[in-house]
Amino acid sequence: MIIETKSTVKAFGGTQGVYSHSSTSTGTEMTFSAFVPAHTRGETLPVLWYLSGLTCTHANVTEKGEFRAACAEHKIIFIAPDTSPRGDNVPDDPEEKYDFGFGAGHYVDATEAPWSEHYKMRSYIEAELPSLISEQFSMADMTRQSITGHSMGGHGALTIGLRNPDRFKSISAFAPIVSPINCPWGQKALSGYLGSDPSAWRDYDACALIADGARHDHILVDQGTDDSFLENELKTELLVAACDKAGVKAEIRMQNGYDHSYYFISSFMADHIAWHARHLG
Amino acid sequence: MIIETKSTVKAFGGTQGVYSHSSTSTGTEMTFSAFVPAHTRGETLPVLWYLSGLTCTHANVTEKGEFRAACAEHKIIFIAPDTSPRGDNVPDDPEEKYDFGFGAGHYVDATEAPWSEHYKMRSYIEAELPSLISEQFSMADMTRQSITGHSMGGHGALTIGLRNPDRFKSISAFAPIVSPINCPWGQKALSGYLGSDPSAWRDYDACALIADGARHDHILVDQGTDDSFLENELKTELLVAACDKAGVKAEIRMQNGYDHSYYFISSFMADHIAWHARHLG
Repeated sequence: MIIETKSTVKAFGGTQGVYSHSSTSTGTEMTFSAFVPAHTRGETLPVLWYLSGLTCTHANVTEKGEFRAACAEHKIIFIAPDTSPRGDNVPDDPEEKYDFGFGAGHYVDATEAPWSEHYKMRSYIEAELPSLISEQFSMADMTRQSITGHSMGGHGALTIGLRNPDRFKSISAFAPIVSPINCPWGQKALSGYLGSDPSAWRDYDACALIADGARHDHILVDQGTDDSFLENELKTELLVAACDKAGVKAEIRMQNGYDHSYYFISSFMADHIAWHARHLG
Repeated sequence: MIIETKSTVKAFGGTQGVYSHSSTSTGTEMTFSAFVPAHTRGETLPVLWYLSGLTCTHANVTEKGEFRAACAEHKIIFIAPDTSPRGDNVPDDPEEKYDFGFGAGHYVDATEAPWSEHYKMRSYIEAELPSLISEQFSMADMTRQSITGHSMGGHGALTIGLRNPDRFKSISAFAPIVSPINCPWGQKALSGYLGSDPSAWRDYDACALIADGARHDHILVDQGTDDSFLENELKTELLVAACDKAGVKAEIRMQNGYDHSYYFISSFMADHIAWHARHLG
């Protein structure tokens, strides 16, 4: 596998890079960013995945996430992938809305035409990109991975983490969609990408996964109380209920007065990274 | 004086706001951002001014400066003004270059037509905006102010700080223009705004101010060695020489491998804020 280095810049003693590569999962060029803290030759560092929300690329968190200070302190590699395939040959939402198509891959492997040709974000994040990181970043210790994300990316982090509990030492999320089956964003995405049979949707719903037996011992969620998407889309209370019913001990914190923006994410980013660091050892 | 609140958002326990007001100095609507950390009723907090570089508005540092964690920790108000007047009735660089006109006020009071009508950034930053802050932000303790900035804004911080040593407890700068008299950016700006007589320029040149007797006991400068503007525009060595010659003890640090971007600024922002906090008491 080959990656192209789009840019590297020194930051907090380490290297913030942006890279692209030809993805076999999506059949497109994909871009991601990686922050690699300063480290000694031969030293290996754990990896924290950050999955972004609707409309975002790798760039939003890279510029506004305020993760580098804490990643440098705890010596954690921070990887931020894109949120969908893109390109002239890739279909976008026919209505050109922000919640489907470009920037809105929802971390699923689409099965419905015309999306199924390129919208393979589950395979991309679960399999292809980790292989690429392992191969291209020799300091990455792939036996120590954790995952986090925001909004649609919080949904991605929760579902990918719950499906792969042995791979990820800890899962966290900022203002995640906790049950796409039960909200307009999720219903549009899952019916579009996966078709109308809701039984095919459960693999992509954190609450359904927990109801169906998925477990993880280290889950942390922060959700702002002034988030305008909380009531209709994010519905944190469904995750609280699913965890309670299944006996899953998740730390789900309602943060008073915070909204859905990167001002919220950055306020708690260092805290999440420190929490992941404890589980990454 | 009246300000309009454009936005407020909770961040790091405090409030990040963006405000606008009708400026008597510039004769235009001016926008600035202010971060006010959490504080108790009646508590007053010191103020750190951040002056931005060429092409920037208040927004660049507000989004990418990573100052809020440290300002919240040290309980410092952080004010980020715009870099020039703007508007349909304000003249811009005839060549539409980035280094003059909009986004390039260079923190001077222009004396040459047509710039002299609106380009009054010295008066705006030195007098009008502090009065507005004092009036509108009751928690701001204007007896405890410090100033910092980046590039053109580093030039602004150094010159405003050196001209007002009793007002500012400490002055810092990231990759500042240290001697506009001696670099292309500065020569274009000062000749354009002030006319061709270089004797009028010395008030706006940190090195000249020091040579002419200006003093400050607490100056901190960080400059990246991989900054593409270092050799021709920033010329840190001129400030080192001016301070040495005048016996000014400035802490001027060359930071190996860093460039001119916000990745550099954010890497040292918390350090600068902690240093200012010590002088702000």
